[in-house]
Amino acid sequence: MYAVILAGGAGTRLWPRSRKSSPKQFNDLTGSGRTMIQATADRLEGLVSREDTYVITGRRYAGLCAAQLDGLPQQNILEEPEGRNTAPAIALACAHLRRRDPEEVAAILPADHLIQDRRGFQDALRQAEQSARAGFITVLGIEPTQAHTGYGYIQRKEEPLDVPGKMATFAVNRFLEKPDQATAEQFLADGGYFWNGGIFVSRVERLLAEYERQMPSLYESMNRIAAALGTSQEGRVLADVWPAMPDVSIDYGLMEGAEKVAVVPMQVGWNDLGSWDALESVISQDAEGNYPVESEILQMNSRGNIVAASKRLVALIDVEDLIVIDAGDALLIGKKGSIQQVKQVVAELQAGDRNELL
Amino acid sequence: MYAVILAGGAGTRLWPRSRKSSPKQFNDLTGSGRTMIQATADRLEGLVSREDTYVITGRRYAGLCAAQLDGLPQQNILEEPEGRNTAPAIALACAHLRRRDPEEVAAILPADHLIQDRRGFQDALRQAEQSARAGFITVLGIEPTQAHTGYGYIQRKEEPLDVPGKMATFAVNRFLEKPDQATAEQFLADGGYFWNGGIFVSRVERLLAEYERQMPSLYESMNRIAAALGTSQEGRVLADVWPAMPDVSIDYGLMEGAEKVAVVPMQVGWNDLGSWDALESVISQDAEGNYPVESEILQMNSRGNIVAASKRLVALIDVEDLIVIDAGDALLIGKKGSIQQVKQVVAELQAGDRNELL
Repeated sequence: MYAVILAGGAGTRLWPRSRKSSPKQFNDLTGSGRTMIQATADRLEGLVSREDTYVITGRRYAGLCAAQLDGLPQQNILEEPEGRNTAPAIALACAHLRRRDPEEVAAILPADHLIQDRRGFQDALRQAEQSARAGFITVLGIEPTQAHTGYGYIQRKEEPLDVPGKMATFAVNRFLEKPDQATAEQFLADGGYFWNGGIFVSRVERLLAEYERQMPSLYESMNRIAAALGTSQEGRVLADVWPAMPDVSIDYGLMEGAEKVAVVPMQVGWNDLGSWDALESVISQDAEGNYPVESEILQMNSRGNIVAASKRLVALIDVEDLIVIDAGDALLIGKKGSIQQVKQVVAELQAGDRNELL
Repeated sequence: MYAVILAGGAGTRLWPRSRKSSPKQFNDLTGSGRTMIQATADRLEGLVSREDTYVITGRRYAGLCAAQLDGLPQQNILEEPEGRNTAPAIALACAHLRRRDPEEVAAILPADHLIQDRRGFQDALRQAEQSARAGFITVLGIEPTQAHTGYGYIQRKEEPLDVPGKMATFAVNRFLEKPDQATAEQFLADGGYFWNGGIFVSRVERLLAEYERQMPSLYESMNRIAAALGTSQEGRVLADVWPAMPDVSIDYGLMEGAEKVAVVPMQVGWNDLGSWDALESVISQDAEGNYPVESEILQMNSRGNIVAASKRLVALIDVEDLIVIDAGDALLIGKKGSIQQVKQVVAELQAGDRNELL
């Protein structure tokens, strides 16, 4: 099985730790000792070798990928000339994988998600591999733990598919965009709905067939790139073709309309760490009710605060539900429920050309 | 005129910037570019030369005094073997000054107060010098700007004294301990009451006479030290005598019972920076309603926050009335009205033997 790790994201909602020079996936945001992309690769140990692991990322991050992923062959770092969306990025990976073995199965994984239960994840990935070998584009469906309105959902069909393996595999009934609160609650009440975390497994040729059928123009561009791979023309063709690639996600462009799509449900402590308040689900609360991330908290009458301050002592006096993120040259202090506004902070820094802080 | 700068304080209420290794007075807490003791000495320019300026401080701070006060003769740094209170410290200074000229006037000044109007302060100090030459122990009385319960008060008598000079000088009716709120309000309503900021001017021999009369035992100890000054016995005698010095303030031990005490009222933007919330009276509010101290604030829906973060960007999201003090190895975040609890933080660090953070 191949693995394709998608590492092109910007992660601006995790400013000031996630920076242009080192986005979210190249950071250890939880104090685990490993960056998110390292943890993503670690999670594949025993299932996919480093020789069969590929990373798609922006040109400026190729060095970070090489530095952080020991044993990853240099040629497995696939550079996007500029950031597009997941449909072109995965097509580029398919162009490379087709040259090796189009019949083989590839797992596509975002580099910037957390998964606490590695064993459970590997079981699900093995099951998805089986399902992919049986011809299905197979999504890992994350059992929802709340009526979250920030994720797309996947509805499975009733009866399990007849796919070998220890876990259940279902045909996908449909993909659903981010729901409103009432709809999300209905999904949970009904059951059979999963969060779409963007992790899926498929034979390479199955993906290529779907590109050809559903996104013929992108498929043609991909073929032009593929024909140039390994030749002196590779760079020129990529630079020529890439800018016209559509800014379309794999979900919207390919998965929603694909044939033979399956889902393997899993319950593995998944978290996309979409914003700083998500740390609350990931970090253990201390005896006083705060969440220290690589920090020492000394508190007086203070509860519910998430504090990531790089091994410093943080004294809190009479404050509640704050998020404190120290990044050396910038310090973020915000109220938990409003922390999404960090996007406006980043926008303001951009408007002010404060590149040193972005 | 001599000046005696009292620089023995610990300033624990201004943790984490004020530290055992460098207490409050050796720090620039307002971003002025000068430490508090430097500003105290600067404030005397034109009135007292550096040759006539003395500093009393703890032994471990002698180096800081020398480093921060250019031109101060080494022998003018008077080291207390251990921290006592102001009565012994000033007696020690008097022992030194008596050898030079007991008839001369000395101004006693705490090293850790802010005064915004230097010219006004110098006018008042000149007036106090006149009054001291006329035989009065003369306190600078700070015109109260609010019914503060954290300071001692000085009540003047009705009629001005017949002392030469441009400003009024009054006899002191009585010194008053820190009042309760109602009493403080009554003081303001009545008028004729001033905050006691611990700044006073007197002939050296007048102070010595009061020590002899009111604190004979301390006076005798001081005489033993004085007799040994400049001899090979100086260190031994100081080490022998000092530990028995009483822990008594100059106000309680000497001023309250002294004869011929005068007060020169002044209104000069005095602030003792007794705790972090005092910065609000000292730092200008920015256009968005926050108080940046050597920091850049980028705020979303955040007002009334005092932020001292050493030239870093601090992004605030939906927070109000916070005090944020960054000291490198420790970060303090507290609610404005509760910031006095920093004393408990320091106590807890002491109890935990966290000397590196004290």
